[in-house]
Amino acid sequence: MNAPLRPDPLPATAPDWGLDDIVRGLHAAREQWRLAHDRKLETSGREFPSRSALHDIIERLCSALFPMRLGPVDLRQGCSEDFYVGHTLDVALRSLLEQVRLELRHVSRHVSRQNPVDPQQLEERAVDIVRRFAAQLPDIRVLLDTDVEAAYRGDPAAHSVDEIVLCYPGTLAIIHHRLAHTLYTLGVPLLARIVAELAHSTTGIDIHPGARIGKSFFIDHGTGVVIGETAVIGERVRLYQAVTLGAKRFTVSADGTLEKGAPRHPIVEDDVVVYAGATILGRVTIGRGSSIGGNVWLTHSVSAGSVVTQAFARNEMMENGGGI
Amino acid sequence: MNAPLRPDPLPATAPDWGLDDIVRGLHAAREQWRLAHDRKLETSGREFPSRSALHDIIERLCSALFPMRLGPVDLRQGCSEDFYVGHTLDVALRSLLEQVRLELRHVSRHVSRQNPVDPQQLEERAVDIVRRFAAQLPDIRVLLDTDVEAAYRGDPAAHSVDEIVLCYPGTLAIIHHRLAHTLYTLGVPLLARIVAELAHSTTGIDIHPGARIGKSFFIDHGTGVVIGETAVIGERVRLYQAVTLGAKRFTVSADGTLEKGAPRHPIVEDDVVVYAGATILGRVTIGRGSSIGGNVWLTHSVSAGSVVTQAFARNEMMENGGGI
Amino acid sequence: MNAPLRPDPLPATAPDWGLDDIVRGLHAAREQWRLAHDRKLETSGREFPSRSALHDIIERLCSALFPMRLGPVDLRQGCSEDFYVGHTLDVALRSLLEQVRLELRHVSRHVSRQNPVDPQQLEERAVDIVRRFAAQLPDIRVLLDTDVEAAYRGDPAAHSVDEIVLCYPGTLAIIHHRLAHTLYTLGVPLLARIVAELAHSTTGIDIHPGARIGKSFFIDHGTGVVIGETAVIGERVRLYQAVTLGAKRFTVSADGTLEKGAPRHPIVEDDVVVYAGATILGRVTIGRGSSIGGNVWLTHSVSAGSVVTQAFARNEMMENGGGI
Amino acid sequence: MNAPLRPDPLPATAPDWGLDDIVRGLHAAREQWRLAHDRKLETSGREFPSRSALHDIIERLCSALFPMRLGPVDLRQGCSEDFYVGHTLDVALRSLLEQVRLELRHVSRHVSRQNPVDPQQLEERAVDIVRRFAAQLPDIRVLLDTDVEAAYRGDPAAHSVDEIVLCYPGTLAIIHHRLAHTLYTLGVPLLARIVAELAHSTTGIDIHPGARIGKSFFIDHGTGVVIGETAVIGERVRLYQAVTLGAKRFTVSADGTLEKGAPRHPIVEDDVVVYAGATILGRVTIGRGSSIGGNVWLTHSVSAGSVVTQAFARNEMMENGGGI
Amino acid sequence: MNAPLRPDPLPATAPDWGLDDIVRGLHAAREQWRLAHDRKLETSGREFPSRSALHDIIERLCSALFPMRLGPVDLRQGCSEDFYVGHTLDVALRSLLEQVRLELRHVSRHVSRQNPVDPQQLEERAVDIVRRFAAQLPDIRVLLDTDVEAAYRGDPAAHSVDEIVLCYPGTLAIIHHRLAHTLYTLGVPLLARIVAELAHSTTGIDIHPGARIGKSFFIDHGTGVVIGETAVIGERVRLYQAVTLGAKRFTVSADGTLEKGAPRHPIVEDDVVVYAGATILGRVTIGRGSSIGGNVWLTHSVSAGSVVTQAFARNEMMENGGGI
Amino acid sequence: MNAPLRPDPLPATAPDWGLDDIVRGLHAAREQWRLAHDRKLETSGREFPSRSALHDIIERLCSALFPMRLGPVDLRQGCSEDFYVGHTLDVALRSLLEQVRLELRHVSRHVSRQNPVDPQQLEERAVDIVRRFAAQLPDIRVLLDTDVEAAYRGDPAAHSVDEIVLCYPGTLAIIHHRLAHTLYTLGVPLLARIVAELAHSTTGIDIHPGARIGKSFFIDHGTGVVIGETAVIGERVRLYQAVTLGAKRFTVSADGTLEKGAPRHPIVEDDVVVYAGATILGRVTIGRGSSIGGNVWLTHSVSAGSVVTQAFARNEMMENGGGI
Repeated sequence: MNAPLRPDPLPATAPDWGLDDIVRGLHAAREQWRLAHDRKLETSGREFPSRSALHDIIERLCSALFPMRLGPVDLRQGCSEDFYVGHTLDVALRSLLEQVRLELRHVSRHVSRQNPVDPQQLEERAVDIVRRFAAQLPDIRVLLDTDVEAAYRGDPAAHSVDEIVLCYPGTLAIIHHRLAHTLYTLGVPLLARIVAELAHSTTGIDIHPGARIGKSFFIDHGTGVVIGETAVIGERVRLYQAVTLGAKRFTVSADGTLEKGAPRHPIVEDDVVVYAGATILGRVTIGRGSSIGGNVWLTHSVSAGSVVTQAFARNEMMENGGGI
Repeated sequence: MNAPLRPDPLPATAPDWGLDDIVRGLHAAREQWRLAHDRKLETSGREFPSRSALHDIIERLCSALFPMRLGPVDLRQGCSEDFYVGHTLDVALRSLLEQVRLELRHVSRHVSRQNPVDPQQLEERAVDIVRRFAAQLPDIRVLLDTDVEAAYRGDPAAHSVDEIVLCYPGTLAIIHHRLAHTLYTLGVPLLARIVAELAHSTTGIDIHPGARIGKSFFIDHGTGVVIGETAVIGERVRLYQAVTLGAKRFTVSADGTLEKGAPRHPIVEDDVVVYAGATILGRVTIGRGSSIGGNVWLTHSVSAGSVVTQAFARNEMMENGGGI
Repeated sequence: MNAPLRPDPLPATAPDWGLDDIVRGLHAAREQWRLAHDRKLETSGREFPSRSALHDIIERLCSALFPMRLGPVDLRQGCSEDFYVGHTLDVALRSLLEQVRLELRHVSRHVSRQNPVDPQQLEERAVDIVRRFAAQLPDIRVLLDTDVEAAYRGDPAAHSVDEIVLCYPGTLAIIHHRLAHTLYTLGVPLLARIVAELAHSTTGIDIHPGARIGKSFFIDHGTGVVIGETAVIGERVRLYQAVTLGAKRFTVSADGTLEKGAPRHPIVEDDVVVYAGATILGRVTIGRGSSIGGNVWLTHSVSAGSVVTQAFARNEMMENGGGI
Repeated sequence: MNAPLRPDPLPATAPDWGLDDIVRGLHAAREQWRLAHDRKLETSGREFPSRSALHDIIERLCSALFPMRLGPVDLRQGCSEDFYVGHTLDVALRSLLEQVRLELRHVSRHVSRQNPVDPQQLEERAVDIVRRFAAQLPDIRVLLDTDVEAAYRGDPAAHSVDEIVLCYPGTLAIIHHRLAHTLYTLGVPLLARIVAELAHSTTGIDIHPGARIGKSFFIDHGTGVVIGETAVIGERVRLYQAVTLGAKRFTVSADGTLEKGAPRHPIVEDDVVVYAGATILGRVTIGRGSSIGGNVWLTHSVSAGSVVTQAFARNEMMENGGGI
Repeated sequence: MNAPLRPDPLPATAPDWGLDDIVRGLHAAREQWRLAHDRKLETSGREFPSRSALHDIIERLCSALFPMRLGPVDLRQGCSEDFYVGHTLDVALRSLLEQVRLELRHVSRHVSRQNPVDPQQLEERAVDIVRRFAAQLPDIRVLLDTDVEAAYRGDPAAHSVDEIVLCYPGTLAIIHHRLAHTLYTLGVPLLARIVAELAHSTTGIDIHPGARIGKSFFIDHGTGVVIGETAVIGERVRLYQAVTLGAKRFTVSADGTLEKGAPRHPIVEDDVVVYAGATILGRVTIGRGSSIGGNVWLTHSVSAGSVVTQAFARNEMMENGGGI
Repeated sequence: MNAPLRPDPLPATAPDWGLDDIVRGLHAAREQWRLAHDRKLETSGREFPSRSALHDIIERLCSALFPMRLGPVDLRQGCSEDFYVGHTLDVALRSLLEQVRLELRHVSRHVSRQNPVDPQQLEERAVDIVRRFAAQLPDIRVLLDTDVEAAYRGDPAAHSVDEIVLCYPGTLAIIHHRLAHTLYTLGVPLLARIVAELAHSTTGIDIHPGARIGKSFFIDHGTGVVIGETAVIGERVRLYQAVTLGAKRFTVSADGTLEKGAPRHPIVEDDVVVYAGATILGRVTIGRGSSIGGNVWLTHSVSAGSVVTQAFARNEMMENGGGI
């Protein structure tokens, strides 16, 4: 297909990139890195989970969760639907087991190197994680159904619940999140993070897998939404695009490293709506039923039923002013 | 390629996920959903349009609209160009017909269930929709050429019109929009929405297919742009990243449902420029030739020739203040 | 797989889209465009670089730069690692040479049409560009290692440097940028731009390949970041999502065209942090060690060590105000 | 990957093949053919079964028949095995239904054109054929197990029954034949023939789907074996490569056409062995337990227990004779 | 999919194949070969035509020759059929041009090394060959139609002409041969040979592209047929499986090399039938209307209307003789 | 692409194949087989080597053995050639190791079940086999070069040695054989057999991997050639199509099983030629320099320099005899 269309008559010397030198240069750069990070020669192949493997796994899980809407075009309900779901889960879980192993092994070798895990224990833990994950899938489906209904009720442009599952980036993000969060709580945060980034890349919605989100959650449009690791979100919450539930400036310890793990993102109670572009930072609480206006910048708690808007939004806009 | 590299010597028992239980659990969850939504058993296969099929269709249409720039690498102008365009359209339209059928059938079964459409009528309508769509393609191409020229005139970094077609996410978004809007006006809003989401996912630009946009339209950078369903945009309008042309809070009827369909997004007249991050909400009118500054929050109409900027942008910034 | 499941019993007439007319209409639209842009018949095939070819090339380069983390799953360190790197580079550079040729030829024919380049000279230049590009790869790898370390130090949620390479969209963006910037400085700006757009589409981070960025650079979250063509960024700079380093309104010459190429984007000195949503416009300088708060809108220079926040962020928020 | 490596500096005129003329010439040739065969314009797409679709279907059926040996590498026995079998059959049978429809429709339009079948009846017949086919699969598996055991007992080089299923072309041929013969008896001879040719192409063994073959059948090596449409083969028969069970010269009717359908191939009774290269022609009977020697040419019946060899095989070979 | 299912707990050392030594050993073997054959370093990439490229080209040509039967499933007759044919030919011929170039260049460098062809002349010749080839396609289609009809008339098992095109290996072989023979006569024998081997591999029918074959040719079953380079076959000839039209022992010159190019295979006149397994060797003539029986070994000419059978076929078979 | 073209208006009931019953039936058939063969439940996944994996491995080995002729189109000689060879071998050997493991494990479990191999020993043996195999590759290449030269000298139609490598099925067969034979002698006969069948399927040439074949071996045309497990072939031997070097009737032991392993195929000494269709059976010796004529049937030894032809070939052919 890529056949060139013109003659190449001149006796050209073929390009010589000095490939040997470049390969040596890259080799040296890798050595330098490995020395700096105290990595010894890895004789056993790449040890990291694979983004593309997780992409496949999530796609299969989506098909198994919503077989008639995200599964293959020609599936029928009835007995063949269960054959499909069973076989698809079988393949997905088997492949997930391998990824779980890779993360556990990686942690064992590089992170807790002083105290490596016994291989047999590691394997048992991997199997246990996948088994627990699998067992939660029916509940995850029920939870996702509440999200789909919330989106249907929340968007006047939606024609049917089916459209929500097929088209809405917010749906894709919450499916990924509920799977990623389960992985996170089961002890494979790197897998969880990769799953979250898959959704981030496709939808522009960046939810850390650590965030805890109640049922009937809906994000409209969604591009630019960021939800931090320790955020806690209640039931029936609705967010619009570019909303940030973030941390304030990190606490730096005396030794210059960042303090990790402490609660540092907002708590958003039930029935809150946050409009586009609003930024809520720090471990503050947004009381239930509150409404946070577009572009609002909020770094303290507000009580239940609050309606927060930008001060200047109503009265400080200057028109016909000079050039920006 | 994925061959494991180490022995697996231990007589391990194979993982048993309790697959039968999970399949039953998922089956029950689906049943519950179908009951809740009054769906009867579908014995005839999945009925929804397919995102991946539409992805293919749009790719082919892009190739047919711009054969020398988005078509295959080795295409030549002249008679083989028309063979290519004709064949590519033939495949794309045939495949589109199937997707149109799926949407019409879905609507007939689930949305207007009381009043199902006669299959023959449905088929005739599907064919008619595709025929009308196809007939508009030359005009769409002419319109897109004005958009490409607008981008070239509007971006000092652009070296050639060809670069605009090949590289600019705004170009991708407007091609998708003009195709999606045509589908929307022809009565297949679900297909239109899927096409819009394809562009949203790739470019971060979220234009509802209902939006009416005049010629010579240009979006620069684009990530985070949201344009609502009833927005009306004139000719030679230019938008930057993260601009929202949205609705204000929705009107909720007495019965608690959202009011649908009413005009609720801005009208932007000819020759308006809206800078990055500006938010314009509600059925307001931005008079022709106006310039809306970056991050401006605007919820009322402005007359022709207005220049709107943020009040504080010039004089209220505090420097060396305390921590955020 | 797509077999229809129902009979198709009616003797329907097959759809006739009037394909001949549409092909003629599109042909006419293309002719009109070519006339308007003074393009003569191209008898030699498509002349533009290919986005999908560049996607492949960049993927291979990523694998060659980080073979154990972005390369194939079953690679081992040691001698086979160098075989892999050498072969992968060989394929990537060869394919890049073809794309470089396409850009140079395109420029020669359409942009500097008065003064076309001699084919042999063009070929020599293409080979020279690829050779120079290849020679810089080891240095690029060293530079990227500083970026990865900066991310690790800058994000309290990061568990290991490996996680940074595998999961962080900011890492993907800076790898693409450092490769794109090298292409830009070597004289193939169109290729550079396509590479930048590949990252933009995946990460929502839009860095113009012309931007100059020092070592240890880190973008967290990233969606909505825009960095302009003439921006200059020092070492150890950290940006959050939705930060814009943009130009102010363009200068329009007397003849109505935009002035091109002049420095028009910010200079950000070493050790600066810019928080989410901040917008910095024009050729201003952010002094070293400064901290620019979230959502700040800044169009003038600030001296070293400045801490800039939104005035209203602390004291002007109105709560329980009326509807937005 | 196919990037050319040399410059193409000469301003060559692009090749012009006179494509319009060739397309017209081919169009005329097709018209001539359609006229000669009284085909009217087909406005409804290609109507023939598809070789590649049948290839897929047979592959799936093989996997469903022998899941642990011809199915996917990572299948496990137990409940996931049945999920796999159920889902694989579901896909295969659905796809087979479409192919059955295509054959029935083709026959209805072109072969029995005077008496076209009602579409609804045609559909019912198609479904009925697939249902009957599906119901026979367990029996076919049992029959194939006897063939595998026969091969194991018959070949001193075989190490295990598993090797027979994985490696022996004779096994591939008999699996295809037993499926093809079932299709043949159910009334879709064209599908049956395509399935037979798939095996012929891979193994060089050409068994007409009409042939009736008893259990425990074994063909060793196999290349060049030809078994005709009306051949009847008993139980525990063994054939070697290049054996022909063919027809004698066809009877030509007065009108010059060949007489069709009459029994014209051999009957081979139980426990017969036919060695390599033997040719048995016409409706003759090879009595049970007979042994037909290599290269024998046989056109009459032989009684049970016969041992037939070439006369010259033992005593008429000339050595050191002249040049051939 | 290939995830291993068991733990790999033992700290195994990774296999070390001594890859460096093997690569050096293979390098030395290649050097030795290149020295022995006086090949200098090829700095310009592989120079041979590609079997897989030719496979693609032939598949496209088959689709263009028989669009409704070998083309895509959903093609319709009428205007879209010609778009398809035109575009398919465009791609196929372009790709063929590249392969023709590769053969001509290879011959110029290695075979007629003393007298290398000027690159521009070579290009002109390549274009000329493809143009002539393309121009003959309509005639080839007409010729192939006669072959299809001959098969239909000659096989009592055939239900329709369509079945012949779809299922018969003899049809596949003759389509390949008529294309290969055209390439052979146009001066690209290596391409022709590769095309012939593609058919040989699929059908077991081995026709040298040099053989001249008249219209209405039919090979039944076909496995094992061999037709030599200088064979000449008239019209309406019918062959069965395992027929050889070969050369007698080659003439060896005084210098020990084989004499090339001289006519050394049979001439088979019009209306001849050759039954399965017959071997005809040397430049003999089989007179028109003759019938050559199965397994006959023939090394001299026979006059028109001859009926040749094996002497022993009727009366020398020994039954119940000893063991072979 | 497979979009149906007609409406499907009738409210058909979807086909119901009784899938549950069929799955149960197949399950029962498998159980029956497993009981009959004393297989216990395999909880650890499929244990057999994979034909498609071996296909890949052999393709990579061919590319590594002949990089400039069977490798990728755009490879260059020089340093990039060795990178390619090294990387290709690395992937191929790694994948081969997995297949070797599968065979050893299969043997350990099913064949020598009484005496299972210790897993660690098994792994060591697998690695050892691949290491020895790899070490022989340079010698195999040298040997294959003699075969290629023999083909060039032996076929008057060959234009260049390159053509032999690219086109000749005999070359493909001998490359596969020399690799398969090495595997066979190293103790993985099942892998060896699968490799042999890959060549058999493509070329119609069936060489048992146990056969020992000297250098400079050439098979012309080849379809139908069969060479048995214990055959021994000297140097510079030439065979034509349909030659059999087979066993006579097998010796059956008192217990009814076939005797295995004993030498039972011919010894063919140096410089022998065997013409098409000749059959040589049993442990006979064909003395060096002999010539065995076409279709000869030979079951006893002949001394050096013999010329054997069919008795009737010269004088017993009957012409114009009755019908066959």
